[in-house]
Amino acid sequence: MSRFFSNKYAHLTPYTPGEQPRDRRYIKLNTNESPFPPSPKALERAAAAAENLQLYSDPTALALKQKLAQCSGVQPEQVFCSNGSDEVLYFAFLAYCDKNTPAAFPDISYGFYKVFAQFTGIDYTMIPLQEDYSIREEDYFSLGKTIFIANPNAPTGKLLTLAQIERILQNNPSNVVLIDEAYIDFGGESAVKLVDRYDNLLVTQTFSKSRSLAGGRLGMAFGNAKLIQDLETVKFSINPYNVNSVTMAAGIGALEDEEYTRKNCGIIMENRAYTAKKLEEMGFTVLPSFANFLFASPPGGDGGSLYKALKDKGILVRYFDATRLREFVRITIGTRQQMDALLEATSQILEETP
Amino acid sequence: MSRFFSNKYAHLTPYTPGEQPRDRRYIKLNTNESPFPPSPKALERAAAAAENLQLYSDPTALALKQKLAQCSGVQPEQVFCSNGSDEVLYFAFLAYCDKNTPAAFPDISYGFYKVFAQFTGIDYTMIPLQEDYSIREEDYFSLGKTIFIANPNAPTGKLLTLAQIERILQNNPSNVVLIDEAYIDFGGESAVKLVDRYDNLLVTQTFSKSRSLAGGRLGMAFGNAKLIQDLETVKFSINPYNVNSVTMAAGIGALEDEEYTRKNCGIIMENRAYTAKKLEEMGFTVLPSFANFLFASPPGGDGGSLYKALKDKGILVRYFDATRLREFVRITIGTRQQMDALLEATSQILEETP
Repeated sequence: MSRFFSNKYAHLTPYTPGEQPRDRRYIKLNTNESPFPPSPKALERAAAAAENLQLYSDPTALALKQKLAQCSGVQPEQVFCSNGSDEVLYFAFLAYCDKNTPAAFPDISYGFYKVFAQFTGIDYTMIPLQEDYSIREEDYFSLGKTIFIANPNAPTGKLLTLAQIERILQNNPSNVVLIDEAYIDFGGESAVKLVDRYDNLLVTQTFSKSRSLAGGRLGMAFGNAKLIQDLETVKFSINPYNVNSVTMAAGIGALEDEEYTRKNCGIIMENRAYTAKKLEEMGFTVLPSFANFLFASPPGGDGGSLYKALKDKGILVRYFDATRLREFVRITIGTRQQMDALLEATSQILEETP
Repeated sequence: MSRFFSNKYAHLTPYTPGEQPRDRRYIKLNTNESPFPPSPKALERAAAAAENLQLYSDPTALALKQKLAQCSGVQPEQVFCSNGSDEVLYFAFLAYCDKNTPAAFPDISYGFYKVFAQFTGIDYTMIPLQEDYSIREEDYFSLGKTIFIANPNAPTGKLLTLAQIERILQNNPSNVVLIDEAYIDFGGESAVKLVDRYDNLLVTQTFSKSRSLAGGRLGMAFGNAKLIQDLETVKFSINPYNVNSVTMAAGIGALEDEEYTRKNCGIIMENRAYTAKKLEEMGFTVLPSFANFLFASPPGGDGGSLYKALKDKGILVRYFDATRLREFVRITIGTRQQMDALLEATSQILEETP
């Protein structure tokens, strides 16, 4: 820290991304990336766009918004595009939280919500998950706060139904409820279809998981046109050209190939069921997951040791050293081959454990 | 604006990017882009990186930092990479301004400084340029504020010498002085060579102008390692994967082809001198420019009418409807052919003017 750094950040703990060690090649099951390359259509459009990189990208993201609107059954003015969905989450904290309107989110969820709240100096409440790691919708009624819920939740993988989300929306008519659907394409039902009915609903999604574009940085939000206009105001006050032109083109290409996305999501869901079953046969507790990862606790409940032992064997999973999470590791679902390597290594580790 | 939008933004005016009309094809001389495509090496590296877009980009931007450090004669830990240089400017406002440390910048400069200050709720002082539109360094001595200076300045194109910048640094030992070098490659001398000597110096640059990557969104900052660490803290609290992997690769490719950049900058500087001379022959007042644009006032001093008349003829330039700027238009320097089209159209307009 320099002597010039504003002391408003004195107590800040930034986000810690999943590790990307370079000491050897790993089977990388720690950051919920897709094991499949981007769609050929995405690559084709990206290559064509690269030829004109000397020109600024479209700050209105018009073509991408139109395509997203068409694919999602909304209007272009109900769509916002961002440099990854982290950025739109940050913009939402800026737009909808202040000293009169604090934030609320589950105590176990995407770790960045807390960082955003701390960084923007917003008061926040972390609402405990139930004993089975699920969200109880009544806990989010009439809070007078801006609500952030990941659905499916991370790192648990647990899903709220649309009926549950509607009850949360109905019981917070004066506050924005943001539903973070980073993992919605792996078996969940999207709340995007509710944006015409609830002017307090903002839904965020990403191209990083189901659409194999994590490295391109493309996120989006769906909501009432007025909410989207708020986000545009924030964006045009920070970084109007926030999405680069190659990524915009890749995003359009990916949306032109929804069949590819559906097929890949189908494989991931099959591999998820397969892996969960095998882990349970080894004595793991596995939470029912609607995401492209499993949150699984080994026999004995020592997630940290399993994480380390797997890393020694060249397999990276994610471990969270925190209350109620230490018993688990979060395993990204990859190809069948990657899952078999994970299962084989895990089986060896359990045998070796005294 | 929605009924949920925080009222802290009630009086905010977001930034207005240069227009991108779609009604016809224009000769686009309004947003200071390069008329040349990216280097073939940049495109080659971008295409290779696209194949792995399913993986997250490196949040530490290590390879790009190493290449930038090598090209700029600094250490990798003295380099910060961002999603365009607007983003690093925003991060600097967050990091180095607060209620105890307001901001200061010229009254005529990059319009975004004022937007950043307003958006982040920071007090700011706009220091008038001198009568000849130059910056007087003494006006920036011992202000007790974080100082933002574009060098060359925009939209004037005027340059401070390194000696002048050093005096500003020496007279603000307790405050950060940010030198925004978006246009430094068109005849100016970079302050990057001063970062080892002044721990209060932060220099920002961009790949958008001289390196033909405006659509890729790549900016960077150079400074003392502690300043860079502050910016990393901000970034890891907002958007750790802020630069996408294709753009990082394109940036490395562009830096591997500095000869291409130098050649293009040489052509731009030649065309700038050519265009300035021709405009002066038509009776224009042209400020001496060290950027890839000219700030030029037509005979009669009606910038707005010239802008409109040029747009009617299919040529876009930038017009700022503000005190001391209304007399001018800002003209991006393009190819010789584009400049001849501009000069021909301008000549016609002057003849047609009663």
